[in-house]
Amino acid sequence: MAPTAEGSSDALWADFPRGPLDAYRARASFSWKDLQLFLEGEELIRFRNTIFSALENDPLFARSRGADLSLEKYRKLNFLRCKRVFEHGFFSMEDLAGNPLRVLTVIHCLGMYDWSLATKCVLHMMVFGSAIYNSGSERHLKYIEKIFNLEIFGCFALTEVSHGSNTKAIRTTAHYDPATQEFIIHSPDFEAAKFWVGNMGKTATHAVVFAQLYTPGGQCHGLHSFMVQIRDPKTLLPMPGVMVGDMGRKVGQNGLDNGFAMFHKVRIPRQDLLNRTGDVTPEGTYITPFKDVRQRFGASLGSLSSGRISIVSMSVVNLKLAVAIALRFSATRRQFGPTDEEEIPVLEYQLQQWRLLPYLAAAYALDHFSKTLFLDLMELQRGLLARDRSARQAELGREIHALASAGKPLASWTAQQGIQECREACGGHGYLAINRLGDLRDDNDPNCTYEGDNNVLLQQTSSYLLGLLEQRHQDGTRFESPLRTVDFLEAYPSILGQKFRGSCSADWLDSTAPLAAYKWLVCYLLRESYQKFNQEKRSGSGDFEARSNSQVYHCRSLALAFMELTVVRRFHEFTHGPGVPPPLRPVLGRLSALYALWSLSQHLALLYRGGYLAGEQAGKSVEQAVLDLCAQLKDDAVALVDVIAPPDFVLDSPIGRADGELYKNLWSAILQEGKALQRPSWWPEFSVNKPEVGRLKSKL
Amino acid sequence: MAPTAEGSSDALWADFPRGPLDAYRARASFSWKDLQLFLEGEELIRFRNTIFSALENDPLFARSRGADLSLEKYRKLNFLRCKRVFEHGFFSMEDLAGNPLRVLTVIHCLGMYDWSLATKCVLHMMVFGSAIYNSGSERHLKYIEKIFNLEIFGCFALTEVSHGSNTKAIRTTAHYDPATQEFIIHSPDFEAAKFWVGNMGKTATHAVVFAQLYTPGGQCHGLHSFMVQIRDPKTLLPMPGVMVGDMGRKVGQNGLDNGFAMFHKVRIPRQDLLNRTGDVTPEGTYITPFKDVRQRFGASLGSLSSGRISIVSMSVVNLKLAVAIALRFSATRRQFGPTDEEEIPVLEYQLQQWRLLPYLAAAYALDHFSKTLFLDLMELQRGLLARDRSARQAELGREIHALASAGKPLASWTAQQGIQECREACGGHGYLAINRLGDLRDDNDPNCTYEGDNNVLLQQTSSYLLGLLEQRHQDGTRFESPLRTVDFLEAYPSILGQKFRGSCSADWLDSTAPLAAYKWLVCYLLRESYQKFNQEKRSGSGDFEARSNSQVYHCRSLALAFMELTVVRRFHEFTHGPGVPPPLRPVLGRLSALYALWSLSQHLALLYRGGYLAGEQAGKSVEQAVLDLCAQLKDDAVALVDVIAPPDFVLDSPIGRADGELYKNLWSAILQEGKALQRPSWWPEFSVNKPEVGRLKSKL
Repeated sequence: MAPTAEGSSDALWADFPRGPLDAYRARASFSWKDLQLFLEGEELIRFRNTIFSALENDPLFARSRGADLSLEKYRKLNFLRCKRVFEHGFFSMEDLAGNPLRVLTVIHCLGMYDWSLATKCVLHMMVFGSAIYNSGSERHLKYIEKIFNLEIFGCFALTEVSHGSNTKAIRTTAHYDPATQEFIIHSPDFEAAKFWVGNMGKTATHAVVFAQLYTPGGQCHGLHSFMVQIRDPKTLLPMPGVMVGDMGRKVGQNGLDNGFAMFHKVRIPRQDLLNRTGDVTPEGTYITPFKDVRQRFGASLGSLSSGRISIVSMSVVNLKLAVAIALRFSATRRQFGPTDEEEIPVLEYQLQQWRLLPYLAAAYALDHFSKTLFLDLMELQRGLLARDRSARQAELGREIHALASAGKPLASWTAQQGIQECREACGGHGYLAINRLGDLRDDNDPNCTYEGDNNVLLQQTSSYLLGLLEQRHQDGTRFESPLRTVDFLEAYPSILGQKFRGSCSADWLDSTAPLAAYKWLVCYLLRESYQKFNQEKRSGSGDFEARSNSQVYHCRSLALAFMELTVVRRFHEFTHGPGVPPPLRPVLGRLSALYALWSLSQHLALLYRGGYLAGEQAGKSVEQAVLDLCAQLKDDAVALVDVIAPPDFVLDSPIGRADGELYKNLWSAILQEGKALQRPSWWPEFSVNKPEVGRLKSKL
Repeated sequence: MAPTAEGSSDALWADFPRGPLDAYRARASFSWKDLQLFLEGEELIRFRNTIFSALENDPLFARSRGADLSLEKYRKLNFLRCKRVFEHGFFSMEDLAGNPLRVLTVIHCLGMYDWSLATKCVLHMMVFGSAIYNSGSERHLKYIEKIFNLEIFGCFALTEVSHGSNTKAIRTTAHYDPATQEFIIHSPDFEAAKFWVGNMGKTATHAVVFAQLYTPGGQCHGLHSFMVQIRDPKTLLPMPGVMVGDMGRKVGQNGLDNGFAMFHKVRIPRQDLLNRTGDVTPEGTYITPFKDVRQRFGASLGSLSSGRISIVSMSVVNLKLAVAIALRFSATRRQFGPTDEEEIPVLEYQLQQWRLLPYLAAAYALDHFSKTLFLDLMELQRGLLARDRSARQAELGREIHALASAGKPLASWTAQQGIQECREACGGHGYLAINRLGDLRDDNDPNCTYEGDNNVLLQQTSSYLLGLLEQRHQDGTRFESPLRTVDFLEAYPSILGQKFRGSCSADWLDSTAPLAAYKWLVCYLLRESYQKFNQEKRSGSGDFEARSNSQVYHCRSLALAFMELTVVRRFHEFTHGPGVPPPLRPVLGRLSALYALWSLSQHLALLYRGGYLAGEQAGKSVEQAVLDLCAQLKDDAVALVDVIAPPDFVLDSPIGRADGELYKNLWSAILQEGKALQRPSWWPEFSVNKPEVGRLKSKL
């Protein structure tokens, strides 16, 4: 356990300026410093402080308020900042190998500042770098050093114009020519152009390109990845045969240059095949340690979990930023009141509490889940490095794949909806760009799409669960998994017979009750999904069609419910564990219960329909408990935000600043815009060039 | 009835180019031209065609693909386009007086092109103009002509930095000085600065300013509106004492210049008080035709319904554009399939149908509602002009206020969620800015906020319903309203005794069944809300607190359910009416049933809890019916989109073009961006100025 706040607070935290938030801070039931220390530990807090102050003290990172950057300028600035990140040495080889939690912290810190910057760095170093490291072999290690020196700049080129989710159908080809010992990389047509590739638009010199590998004689060995130079590092001009360009403006993350590339018979050395899962001899014979294409394909895409798990944590960061802004706003914005004379903070309204506090609870619950899942992933990767071929290691891989595939949808959607709610809860002020909720929403949006569309990904999780059930039926295999997320299903028949026995809201105020309800719900949806799939099969559908027709209301709901249960359970166990300092127990318990119950309340119809709940009182008691928890948490809301909000410079939202001087901050930010008070340059268009109204009307 | 498509199709419609959408078009169960003619009528279709081709043929409206406009340039362009709209004479005095449906059509056409343009025109002409027309008197008519000539440019200044929803608390003052017969307009401090005022940022010369009127002696007579000149039309420089400026970038609608203004003892002539509801004599005596401040206040803000009803229709336009893009994409994007060889359009997946088709149905149902509500408003306004003082006229005003106050939230939220779903359903391509889903979402977002925050507005509707119930209890007044939206409540006790008697999905396939369920639901929520409010009162809460604590799960749900019922009922009656041509009946009936059932399915928990539904089968049958309707509608989806989509030039989305050439359009749009293939201007920052990695690390 880290030292208490009292011991070392000077170095770790600056005190907040006094101001309109004092009243709520004074009413908090706990010390925000104690909670932050308990959740993060002193070392990570210090590391984060170091990064944040490096950014704040470097003019290159000065917030370009109202600078109204063009795409070109924003991308330049973002690249310059990326270089500076390397100069600061935030990412280190040692951390990448030995302390991945620190690496994740750097990504989050950069993302809190600007996701364009974080993704630019991550795509180059982590995605491009680990593709080479994990899919290549010793002969490719030379590239790793060049990545760290920025001698080359990299990107990861899988998606094509006409294929994203269906990666197997990728159409770029790599034909091996034994005469020159080269691969010929080729795009058959523009629909097979690589597309959406981050860093490819303007900066990347090298790409890991996925292509169908053909050996002489025309045999296709499936998708492999190749190191392809696309630009000359000396000039940034395209290499011969490569047509590479920028996709232009996106909804968000516009500091990042997403691009496309078409290859016209581009020759690369045989050695630039990333050959971990398959290689070609100089003579043109294909060799692989895997028995069949499917197995090899699975192994080559197996590293996708880590991308998805990163996205879980990125989504959580966005949710934290948004609720921090909206709750500080709500604690200082006053509107209406019991009398005409006195207006009350909008946070005092039950409706505002109900709109925002569940998302605050979700930020805490999902943050905990995200950290634990990351640790699980580390365990998996240790096994991979140790070439662990045990059944447990394989099972762990499957389980983490299932958790990552539903965790990303749950986290990214929760963030998406939470940011939208925060935007609306801040009214017009939330719509002003400088308050950042728009950027958060836009930058979070791709989390719902990349590394697998959310709806498509959920099928991975439901298939995992249905596969376990099928095995149980076929040969009595127990429900058991290394992380124990499915073990409760062993009691599946008896859980389905359970009913809620409580009668009032007090029966729901601890997360134990919603947890039990969730277990029932997952069992119910598992049974329903299994029956639905088999019924489709019996009525003549093939596997593909039966699976397609079992998604809505069945497998999709199953995957989400299972994921919510897992998040709820991990946060429940954490908040109820013996390690929690007693002063923090009440507030953490309430967060746990609120997230659990609020999530569960989306499924009340199923709980009634399947008989877990009965009678009017049951549903009412859930609603009342949600409202009771909101009321209990509202005085803690500002302190809970203080725990998760970055410094003002990083949060970068006048209405969300820690001093709570809502209007002063907003007013001064607007006046600081260079041209706020200027007459428009085009004023003669109004004053001199008067229109002749209706002049063109005859043409109507 | 308009002529059939066969008669006059040449002039009304160009045929769609042949292409990948042909297959779906051929499978449609109806003629899209017949449906468009039935819904819109020949005259409006022709009028719209005229507007659209005027835009398409005018270089000023050329789409600025990738032009990467700065705020300054976009606002200039938007103003130039606004002038051109006046030159085209799209808005005419005659239409404003006699044919408001044409005016609405112009707004929609401009909005489909770009909401920044539509709102700029509307704020100047309709909002500023009608504020003067409705709140002023003969002496202010001189301004109306200047509005139409663009001699002056106007804005409507109500909201302040610290007050929006609570309009009564507005703090700008207007003190009357009999010595000079002037009002002195003053902002006590920056928190009382006018804020968010559209057109005020750069262009407006005049503002309708809301301020507390004080007569000599210091008596305050409440909020009144004043005509205040804020800039010199000859120079666009601010008038003395006026500090006026631009709020900068917003999340969307950035062609529109939202602004702020502080008034430092600005003197305006006595005559510039808009004196319909109250006036001051030259000597300084306040006179009003109203008995008390509250009544006068109500009258002065009574015109808000028309703003909200416009927003309903604007939201519907956005929803139509989004579903048009997403459905054409879904019909041409292929991904996966039953075999590795054959990929199928993603629209063939039940999941994709379920994500999108309900929003298509919602676009149709809400469009119909929006039109009928607009006609109701016209009736109300005819009565106002005729100075109808009947009880029916007053009741009509209250009913329309209730419908507008919940209609705006329902429509704007449905559009918000629908656009988001469409964005995600188009995957990465939906995230590319040129495909426009991001802009639609950003431009639609303020519909949730302005003219009253959605959550706050819903209270108006629930209060209306609870007021009727209270009257019923107190003196037996019948539930009756001019538009008959509440008449069914007369059977309130017996409706509450009803239960769903069906057993299978077929029982839900017509909108009659969900309609009956909705009636029960509204009665249930009305009773629950009434009891909740009274229980709060009994336990000691004041009115303010009791109302606040009855919103979540009660009044808020009541208002939304009542609104959904009204939309469902009006669309049900329309689609089942005798006027529907027989070939169109099946498809319209399915749209009606799908919207009704899908909306209702959000409330299944309440239907179970209150006993309207019982047993597992009931809930399953609702789900199955939704999926059945989706399956029945998917082959009609493209034709249904053809009915509501504007021409390609206006829809402006490569993935949503009518020819269905998804990839060709996308590819060519990206390559048309001027700099797509260019090396970045800052290439030496990579190639020459190499970073010294870790150089700054010592500071860590």
